[in-house]
Amino acid sequence: MSVQPQRAARPTLEDVAERAGVSRATASRVLNSSPRVSPEAHEAVTAAVLELGYTPNHAARSLVTRRTDAVAVVFSEPEPKIFDDPHFGQLIRAAARALSSADVQMVLMLVHSPDDQARAERFLAGGHVDGALLFAPHKGDQLPSIARKLPLPVVYAGRPWGPLRGLHLVDNDNIGGSVLATEHLMSLGRKRIVSVTGTVDEFSSIDRVEGWRTAVGADEAMTELMTESGNFNRDGGKLAMAALLKRVPDLDAVFVASDLMAAGALDALREAGRRVPEDVAVVGFDDHPLIAPHTEPPLTTIKQDANEQVAHMVAHLLRLLRDEPVRARREVLPTILVRRQST
Amino acid sequence: MSVQPQRAARPTLEDVAERAGVSRATASRVLNSSPRVSPEAHEAVTAAVLELGYTPNHAARSLVTRRTDAVAVVFSEPEPKIFDDPHFGQLIRAAARALSSADVQMVLMLVHSPDDQARAERFLAGGHVDGALLFAPHKGDQLPSIARKLPLPVVYAGRPWGPLRGLHLVDNDNIGGSVLATEHLMSLGRKRIVSVTGTVDEFSSIDRVEGWRTAVGADEAMTELMTESGNFNRDGGKLAMAALLKRVPDLDAVFVASDLMAAGALDALREAGRRVPEDVAVVGFDDHPLIAPHTEPPLTTIKQDANEQVAHMVAHLLRLLRDEPVRARREVLPTILVRRQST
Repeated sequence: MSVQPQRAARPTLEDVAERAGVSRATASRVLNSSPRVSPEAHEAVTAAVLELGYTPNHAARSLVTRRTDAVAVVFSEPEPKIFDDPHFGQLIRAAARALSSADVQMVLMLVHSPDDQARAERFLAGGHVDGALLFAPHKGDQLPSIARKLPLPVVYAGRPWGPLRGLHLVDNDNIGGSVLATEHLMSLGRKRIVSVTGTVDEFSSIDRVEGWRTAVGADEAMTELMTESGNFNRDGGKLAMAALLKRVPDLDAVFVASDLMAAGALDALREAGRRVPEDVAVVGFDDHPLIAPHTEPPLTTIKQDANEQVAHMVAHLLRLLRDEPVRARREVLPTILVRRQST
Repeated sequence: MSVQPQRAARPTLEDVAERAGVSRATASRVLNSSPRVSPEAHEAVTAAVLELGYTPNHAARSLVTRRTDAVAVVFSEPEPKIFDDPHFGQLIRAAARALSSADVQMVLMLVHSPDDQARAERFLAGGHVDGALLFAPHKGDQLPSIARKLPLPVVYAGRPWGPLRGLHLVDNDNIGGSVLATEHLMSLGRKRIVSVTGTVDEFSSIDRVEGWRTAVGADEAMTELMTESGNFNRDGGKLAMAALLKRVPDLDAVFVASDLMAAGALDALREAGRRVPEDVAVVGFDDHPLIAPHTEPPLTTIKQDANEQVAHMVAHLLRLLRDEPVRARREVLPTILVRRQST
């Protein structure tokens, strides 16, 4: 069996005018809410619009107003990361909520490859959205520099690589949070504090190493010895913790740069027979609601509020779209210590 | 401090023509790949386009070609479900992959409320996408009937409510899979087979009850006694299993209409001191890679392949977009039994 697809013919303004028994100009005036129409014409045109299922051509209208009432939310991340790390679900949910309450359509785009990037650029440049929120933290990613040239306002999540001049961004205080985490461990009398770090190609990760380094006063050699990357995933956190236990057998505390990696680090500590917090105190980063309260033991961590960051990004972008002044191009949101049983 | 936002002025065709030292008409001919241009003009215009970072106005172009090379993927679901049920992550990942390899931009849209629905309709009708994949399974959802009137091809996931005539859809064989699950339990000699069901407002759920009902030969009273809804979430699965244990204490098997609910049902059985599979055999539905192999014990289940369904939906839509014939408007994909230790 072969079925030919049928495309519904789109009703035109002419169709509406004919059905309403008015001129095209009158129909157009009704649709553009012009005051110069009789109540009869208004009623006839409105009825015709409903009968025909007419929708005004927004592509044509956007040529005039340049408004689509849609905002792109773009994640430029390797595919496994975006689907396996629950942090992204949180960000997407927060963006959906914030844009929905501003009556703006969220258009979510995922960019995993150079081909995806070129395609995303075409769409973003194509007049289909009024602005964009860009999550593109990785070194070497061309999207931030492509985004600078787009004819629409963009608000970045965190610091992208490349020149920052002129960019609008909302960051979390990663350095401050990591200092807080490490000083908390020091205040508990811990002397050998190691760190499981993220990936070296993201500023959020680099800043968290920097916070630990500053707090413990580590030089390069000590940093090399006492830190290990867990690649921001759970298995990586476990492997990194195991490596640190071998290299620094007398460690008594660890600052882990994400809750997901901290869950893996707790597995490694358990397998090595180290008690938490008695033998090793553990602090994570994120305060992810699906992870931190549910680890064994529940995780002391640094809260960075995904909802808050995204809400600020949306508010910032909406001000740009309305040509309203913003207080500062760059916003840095505070991070706080949330204490549970792992310290 | 107050920073005035700067919008990059979008270079126009006039700017390109001026920079290239040619007329607007010549610049336009170059950009539209017309053969009637000199090599010199071609080179000058191309150089000007690169220098100015000019991008043709796709909104204007789409008025002519009606092509955006973008496809909307729309999920109309309550918010908690889409973020807490890993099945959606699978579907989104599969759609991203399939559209990316067809060089089509995925535009992901989430619809949670009537306001979201009106906004999504405006965007979909606005000429920003060439077609749509629609996941809107719930009774009472207006989106499927709205989508029927859109001036673009739509492929539905599963059977939506309302008249099916003329719709293009890709479904999974929910009835066949549930018969398979129940007959598998019967072949193991189980006599009292209950079922934890999904929500009554989705055909996938209704079909799974129907498969169980047919296989065990239940009348209405028996169906009332031996089934309980777990609302397609983990806690619901646990509560439903506990209720069934009270109502049918001699039950020896359960068919659970999703893996996530089955994980909850296993918790309830463990708490009630029933061994799986010795006392109670359990079959799930989905074969979700993050759940089924990792439950305790690993879950026998019915595999519905999210990748396969989405790949078929994308292929179907691409044929419609190219005005190519499709074999059938409605495709039903097979489901198979995957045996693990819970039976």
